[in-house]
Amino acid sequence: MRVSSTGNPVKHPPLLALTTDFGLNDIYVGVMKGVILSICPGARILDLTHGIPPQDVLAGCLALEAARRYLPTGTVHVAVVDPGVGTDRRAVAVRTDRDAFVGPDNGLFSFLAPAEIREVRYLDNPQLTLTPRSATFHGRDVFAPVAAHLAEGTDWSELGTLATEISRLPLPKPEVSPDGFTGQVLTFDRFGNAVTSFRADHLSPERNRVRVAGQEIQVKTTYGDVGPGQPVALVGSSGRLEIAVRDGDARRVLGLDRGSRVVLET
Amino acid sequence: MRVSSTGNPVKHPPLLALTTDFGLNDIYVGVMKGVILSICPGARILDLTHGIPPQDVLAGCLALEAARRYLPTGTVHVAVVDPGVGTDRRAVAVRTDRDAFVGPDNGLFSFLAPAEIREVRYLDNPQLTLTPRSATFHGRDVFAPVAAHLAEGTDWSELGTLATEISRLPLPKPEVSPDGFTGQVLTFDRFGNAVTSFRADHLSPERNRVRVAGQEIQVKTTYGDVGPGQPVALVGSSGRLEIAVRDGDARRVLGLDRGSRVVLET
Amino acid sequence: MRVSSTGNPVKHPPLLALTTDFGLNDIYVGVMKGVILSICPGARILDLTHGIPPQDVLAGCLALEAARRYLPTGTVHVAVVDPGVGTDRRAVAVRTDRDAFVGPDNGLFSFLAPAEIREVRYLDNPQLTLTPRSATFHGRDVFAPVAAHLAEGTDWSELGTLATEISRLPLPKPEVSPDGFTGQVLTFDRFGNAVTSFRADHLSPERNRVRVAGQEIQVKTTYGDVGPGQPVALVGSSGRLEIAVRDGDARRVLGLDRGSRVVLET
Repeated sequence: MRVSSTGNPVKHPPLLALTTDFGLNDIYVGVMKGVILSICPGARILDLTHGIPPQDVLAGCLALEAARRYLPTGTVHVAVVDPGVGTDRRAVAVRTDRDAFVGPDNGLFSFLAPAEIREVRYLDNPQLTLTPRSATFHGRDVFAPVAAHLAEGTDWSELGTLATEISRLPLPKPEVSPDGFTGQVLTFDRFGNAVTSFRADHLSPERNRVRVAGQEIQVKTTYGDVGPGQPVALVGSSGRLEIAVRDGDARRVLGLDRGSRVVLET
Repeated sequence: MRVSSTGNPVKHPPLLALTTDFGLNDIYVGVMKGVILSICPGARILDLTHGIPPQDVLAGCLALEAARRYLPTGTVHVAVVDPGVGTDRRAVAVRTDRDAFVGPDNGLFSFLAPAEIREVRYLDNPQLTLTPRSATFHGRDVFAPVAAHLAEGTDWSELGTLATEISRLPLPKPEVSPDGFTGQVLTFDRFGNAVTSFRADHLSPERNRVRVAGQEIQVKTTYGDVGPGQPVALVGSSGRLEIAVRDGDARRVLGLDRGSRVVLET
Repeated sequence: MRVSSTGNPVKHPPLLALTTDFGLNDIYVGVMKGVILSICPGARILDLTHGIPPQDVLAGCLALEAARRYLPTGTVHVAVVDPGVGTDRRAVAVRTDRDAFVGPDNGLFSFLAPAEIREVRYLDNPQLTLTPRSATFHGRDVFAPVAAHLAEGTDWSELGTLATEISRLPLPKPEVSPDGFTGQVLTFDRFGNAVTSFRADHLSPERNRVRVAGQEIQVKTTYGDVGPGQPVALVGSSGRLEIAVRDGDARRVLGLDRGSRVVLET
């Protein structure tokens, strides 16, 4: 632990981690940070990503699920993928023993197991949000200020009405089919690797081949296990089975799309 | 206010907010931050956006105007949209009671009302800039170091020659026409929403319809006030009238361009 | 130097500067920062750029070379352009009197002169990396945690096996040809300026014209030395000769590509 010049450990406020579909070409993300730093001048802010495809709540949910365990204990996530802003969808904060999440109650936090949730609050305390609250930008007017107040030490009981559950999306899960397990491509990364709905624990020494886009592909440990230009399946950094092409772009080479069928053969 | 382990409030240097047209694929922004942190190791830096369209001074001006009131009091903006770098355009710093702006004197700060300006300085003190000063990258050689020195506590009187005014761009303003007020589309955000030259105070209960791209569109409060796929006009987070399509991309759906005519009917 | 409320100078941990080809649309960069802040909560992190073209080790090398002298003394660079992840390429840390570099040993640090290298270590101490170490994402599992431990004060001797040299790429160098020096276009920036393999010291009052794409272009000091739309050659912010078009995009206007031949006439 870092020690200040007085010999005391330096106390850091909780990290605020931002995940949005705002991109970086507009001022939206900068304005959210301005609001946070106006309330909590010492805030530490981490950009998880602002590249969630516009209004793609499922992609935001998968990003948070894959990333959260690598962020410091105590992190407060501020997540804004919010096609329903201005409707009657609720604003919510959820807390586990490890981290917390502030954002729209639209399924963005569906990855949280009911058993790990310690507290859910609807964000209806007007003293913690900007006034007037716009109908179009709750990232700025609600989620950023509430998270900044948490970083400043505001107690959870002040956030608003206690709730019992969060909204949930149906997450695509592999299903048993005549020829094995059938899953799908969920999303792609920048390198064209396809992230599938299979997790590491769906695999076994006997279940080590996938069929996708008419090809049969072996599950390996790393890209280097196949030759350049060859397709390979492996458990990627997302913790899910990914389809890749060594030194290439699997999305283009194999002609994959989001939703493409992937069969794990048995 | 945060209190250190010694019981004293922690004093933060002023926030430096960066706005440029450099994008994030090159090293320009990283190098500016390196220069700032070399001079002021404890600097707090906020990226407002680096996605201003290349050399689009008006877009930079509108971004700063829309964002500044959400940033902390005392923020020093470093703004670089600088097609005239290497010519005889001046480098300038401007101060108001709320914030300050450092950048090229090319109209980028035209949104500042003359009455709110407290001090204007040309940045001609060579002790505060990098030597040699390149002819192509004043963001690195002039604006970043000057702002870092301000964050370190350098007095405004040391920045350079006192000036009386800043350069100004003609900002597009709505004009009275036979069928109402005629304005235009100024810019678009990532979601395809069109920001217009109308401000909230141009609207009234009687002036609540716009005509744009051959369509008549009602002014509403939020996206949810119309059905999915329907166009809507509303005062957006920019504080200006925006044209949107619910769950869609107004730019594409309505075929809008920058400069497209928008009539607020009376 | 900033002084804390107790009158003592504030000691900052070394700056960690990140350079990758990960882009900002995925969670990779955010996860690396999460790992760093989990180990070193007070870390200061600078994004040099995450826009290196995918798996383009040479572009990463040129970016680091151009940027490093603008970052604070003591900066630890974490650089990840790593097409060989999961193969037997080594992970390495290199130290000079000015800065340090952590990343794959694949030529990414070829710009370092042998004479300036003070220490090279292979990163084979498993206590400083994440367990299990994935075969696909050493940015998260190896390079980020090692750099964070350095920021926390871990001694270089603990990083791993002492080595004597780093891997090196052949860097394109201009060659003498019948009509002068022959070089090439190395890369482009956002504005379409072409960075060439010529450095400032290749130029002289007599060697002040280049021939590129069938045109003869004068070497000038700044964009403003030619008329709008005119091509110009100048020593750009990279420290290399660049080909530009005033108020235009040289890549498009002149039809340049990476590798395009540039002749410095004598």
